[in-house]
Amino acid sequence: MANNLYKKSDSPLIIYDVNKTALEKFTFLHESTLSKKPILHAQTPIEVARKASTIITMLPASPHVKRVYLEAQDSLIHGIDENSLLIDSSTIDQNVTKEVSKKIIEKGARAIDAPVSGAANLTFMVGASTLEDFNRAKPYLSHMGKNIIHCGGLGAGQITKICNNMLLAITMIGVAETMNLGVKLGMDPKLLANILNTSSGRCWSSDSYNPCPGVLSNVPSSKNYEGGFNNKLMAKDTKLAVNAANDANATVILGAIAQQLYSLLSNTVGYEKKDFSSIYRWLNESNN
Amino acid sequence: MANNLYKKSDSPLIIYDVNKTALEKFTFLHESTLSKKPILHAQTPIEVARKASTIITMLPASPHVKRVYLEAQDSLIHGIDENSLLIDSSTIDQNVTKEVSKKIIEKGARAIDAPVSGAANLTFMVGASTLEDFNRAKPYLSHMGKNIIHCGGLGAGQITKICNNMLLAITMIGVAETMNLGVKLGMDPKLLANILNTSSGRCWSSDSYNPCPGVLSNVPSSKNYEGGFNNKLMAKDTKLAVNAANDANATVILGAIAQQLYSLLSNTVGYEKKDFSSIYRWLNESNN
Amino acid sequence: MANNLYKKSDSPLIIYDVNKTALEKFTFLHESTLSKKPILHAQTPIEVARKASTIITMLPASPHVKRVYLEAQDSLIHGIDENSLLIDSSTIDQNVTKEVSKKIIEKGARAIDAPVSGAANLTFMVGASTLEDFNRAKPYLSHMGKNIIHCGGLGAGQITKICNNMLLAITMIGVAETMNLGVKLGMDPKLLANILNTSSGRCWSSDSYNPCPGVLSNVPSSKNYEGGFNNKLMAKDTKLAVNAANDANATVILGAIAQQLYSLLSNTVGYEKKDFSSIYRWLNESNN
Amino acid sequence: MANNLYKKSDSPLIIYDVNKTALEKFTFLHESTLSKKPILHAQTPIEVARKASTIITMLPASPHVKRVYLEAQDSLIHGIDENSLLIDSSTIDQNVTKEVSKKIIEKGARAIDAPVSGAANLTFMVGASTLEDFNRAKPYLSHMGKNIIHCGGLGAGQITKICNNMLLAITMIGVAETMNLGVKLGMDPKLLANILNTSSGRCWSSDSYNPCPGVLSNVPSSKNYEGGFNNKLMAKDTKLAVNAANDANATVILGAIAQQLYSLLSNTVGYEKKDFSSIYRWLNESNN
Repeated sequence: MANNLYKKSDSPLIIYDVNKTALEKFTFLHESTLSKKPILHAQTPIEVARKASTIITMLPASPHVKRVYLEAQDSLIHGIDENSLLIDSSTIDQNVTKEVSKKIIEKGARAIDAPVSGAANLTFMVGASTLEDFNRAKPYLSHMGKNIIHCGGLGAGQITKICNNMLLAITMIGVAETMNLGVKLGMDPKLLANILNTSSGRCWSSDSYNPCPGVLSNVPSSKNYEGGFNNKLMAKDTKLAVNAANDANATVILGAIAQQLYSLLSNTVGYEKKDFSSIYRWLNESNN
Repeated sequence: MANNLYKKSDSPLIIYDVNKTALEKFTFLHESTLSKKPILHAQTPIEVARKASTIITMLPASPHVKRVYLEAQDSLIHGIDENSLLIDSSTIDQNVTKEVSKKIIEKGARAIDAPVSGAANLTFMVGASTLEDFNRAKPYLSHMGKNIIHCGGLGAGQITKICNNMLLAITMIGVAETMNLGVKLGMDPKLLANILNTSSGRCWSSDSYNPCPGVLSNVPSSKNYEGGFNNKLMAKDTKLAVNAANDANATVILGAIAQQLYSLLSNTVGYEKKDFSSIYRWLNESNN
Repeated sequence: MANNLYKKSDSPLIIYDVNKTALEKFTFLHESTLSKKPILHAQTPIEVARKASTIITMLPASPHVKRVYLEAQDSLIHGIDENSLLIDSSTIDQNVTKEVSKKIIEKGARAIDAPVSGAANLTFMVGASTLEDFNRAKPYLSHMGKNIIHCGGLGAGQITKICNNMLLAITMIGVAETMNLGVKLGMDPKLLANILNTSSGRCWSSDSYNPCPGVLSNVPSSKNYEGGFNNKLMAKDTKLAVNAANDANATVILGAIAQQLYSLLSNTVGYEKKDFSSIYRWLNESNN
Repeated sequence: MANNLYKKSDSPLIIYDVNKTALEKFTFLHESTLSKKPILHAQTPIEVARKASTIITMLPASPHVKRVYLEAQDSLIHGIDENSLLIDSSTIDQNVTKEVSKKIIEKGARAIDAPVSGAANLTFMVGASTLEDFNRAKPYLSHMGKNIIHCGGLGAGQITKICNNMLLAITMIGVAETMNLGVKLGMDPKLLANILNTSSGRCWSSDSYNPCPGVLSNVPSSKNYEGGFNNKLMAKDTKLAVNAANDANATVILGAIAQQLYSLLSNTVGYEKKDFSSIYRWLNESNN
């Protein structure tokens, strides 16, 4: 993402990461291409906040976001002002998004949540309380993603992403169970997938990302489940969805099972780093 | 189906039903349109088998198929000969399909399974052991359905249909849980559905048959869940799928839950005859 | 069971098995103990029926029962008369029990279903339409089992057994999940089990058959999950329960999941023949 | 609990509640019994901390505990000293227990978690880092509960309670499904329960709290599911268990379903305040 932002944006780039090697590698890579545009290394989040007006963060989980934005002594909150626009592309608990955004707005700055989805062609699911905020962020996000969607007010990006990913987890397991069942009953997997894809069982997990090896080329299932979106990430996103559902008194029976199965896979030897379509292999290996 | 067959086919029609009133109503309806083509009423299955070379059956469940084809004194098996083609469009246990087909073939006749799927535009999922059998049946099925798909050998029609409908049940519950979750978290349902439909959560249950009222017009969810494919039928199809999975040692965890939920709905006051997308209302009513 | 019957009963014993080696081994074993009581080998089921008035069968599944009782040319039904009492100790579909019993009674003989449960101390769960039938069977069953329980009319033995075993499967998975959770959260397993066993989580799967190795001695979990009641048998019994539930419109959500998990284990390398408490190891292995 | 503590303890009692009416009612009740022992009303938590050396709290959920102990301006933490013993009997997230305890210990005071379980006869499940702490708390807890169990170090009380209650939820649903299945298959409920209770399906939910009306007298199922432990509380406890499991990478498939079902019931009209054994009625009502 930073690569694309650097290449496509006219603005100067200030970068920060706890991993200094990653920063140096990034700079080395781009300076070796003789680009004239400078890359500044910040030493702390607060330095980023003081030097940049548009700030994009991408962090592993809710506690990191709280720390980098609010809790650390050198956190972003202490460096922002009324010109700052803060775009958080982490996938986190929507309650944390709301809590953090509130503090940002209290400082006169603007906040946006923009978690990212997809693989080759990234989609940004954006929560912004005004169209103005959204439009201000859009050019930057467009350098990094193909689709930039305004999902609603603050937190709506997070909500939309966990909704989508919970549904994705359910449909993927559904397709895996279905393909496995059909194949065990003697069906040719390509033919079965083709029929499902023109019938009411049709879904992205079947027609664009089929988990049965050999049905589609160029998807993880045909490359030993390498690449793609791994089981640990799916376990994390479905956990966020189930937690949000519990808070909202929304029943998610299949969602809860999907979460447990991805939690199980993400802790099973040989599956931790495999693409989430490897649920097909797991079902299939167990059934010999 | 019989209406379309009568209207579009050049062949004479011989009809049989245990419900005599249905037969008379059918005849009255078509004679009143001054059609010249006669409609013959058979008194027994065996009479149909003796008078017709192409025989199409559509029966509620496995025991009826066994009775009408094999076990009754006046069953089809006693009237067929080497010219007969028997097309069973019932959705039943694929083991019964294989058992019945075997007996038909022993008599020198040909058998095809062709369960039907879909609502306005019917799809026939056809199991036929030869392409010749398939081609012989196709013209008749084309009078009744839009898509006629050759899924494989005998029983493959049944297998494909239960695979599709198990996946459909899972995706529908998944969409219902997801839409309910999103709405409870404050999302606009139409906007959420639109985003899902262009994201990896995309599926037929969301983009063509969304269970949340008001998202799509002209689907059961926007018509008080009337019409469509009711919960009892979905309970039946998922039960066939789970039974087949148990026989085949194929694990179907979400499939088994989907089956229990549709069994529950099909026995819940107010839901027995509602479309299977009413799982959304059920989740939603419980969550007030 | 036959050993105990031979040792404790005064009646002569006529035995039959499709496995002739098993018969010879049985006879050799008992003749070598210099017992005076003769052991007769029957060549067919019908021969058993002709020579014995009290007949006890123990068969793997419903199809075998149908074959041995009704369908084979030399089946029991052709040899029985009004003096015959037929006791089926197989665990099978209760509908088959009822179908077979009906034919037996039509011949003037008496039928009882008496599936067996437990390990060291067997329990017979008896379905008998009259107390007289029950009392006639009881002395024979008492030679083989410790508890002989009259559960109700014909089929009630089967129903009670599948009810008990479905509940057993659920409680066992529940205990396995709970012990695994507690241990991962740092609890000492013995202490946790002791507290559960005096609290409202108390159950046989915890206090008498705990699945966590080392909590109880002399149970399968402390002997590498050898012996006991294997996953394949539990998969079979829960499948009978779920099928019966589907026929009866009884919702069994946890039952259906338990069935899928035992089906999965019974097809997972290394678990097929392990005791059903090995679900603990399966959960635990996956979670490293 | 406060009633028993007041009656049985020799120590003076200082009470605090946000609900002033409750405080006055309590005092009125006891003063009217002409007891000589004074009841002091504190105006804030900090006042309790200053005046009492042994402090017992019982709060609805994690946020309240954080507020009362740490976050409020007048919170307990600001009033305690090295003589203070803080006993939290709330059922909350064990991570919060650990966080709060740590701050208490940093102040030189001692902390204990002692969530309570059961109805008529309360059990305190105690987490205490030393036996001395446990013994110091035990006399006070003994005035309120029958069983005082030392479960391990700090947080062990919470862990034990959520483990027990998750297992309880699973066994209760299991018993409800089983009794419902048996009754629908024609079994007498009392007879079925009696057999289960002496077989391997035996559990507290069946032998001491059977959810089928009429099987046991004097339990909620025989009193229109009034009293007992309501669905909302069970939904809360199972949610704590599933969250802890997710944090600990422990798979809880039946636990997650149980949690969803109790969440569903706790939001279903007519079930919110019913005892958690009302899952039987819910299954049964749906199945007519």
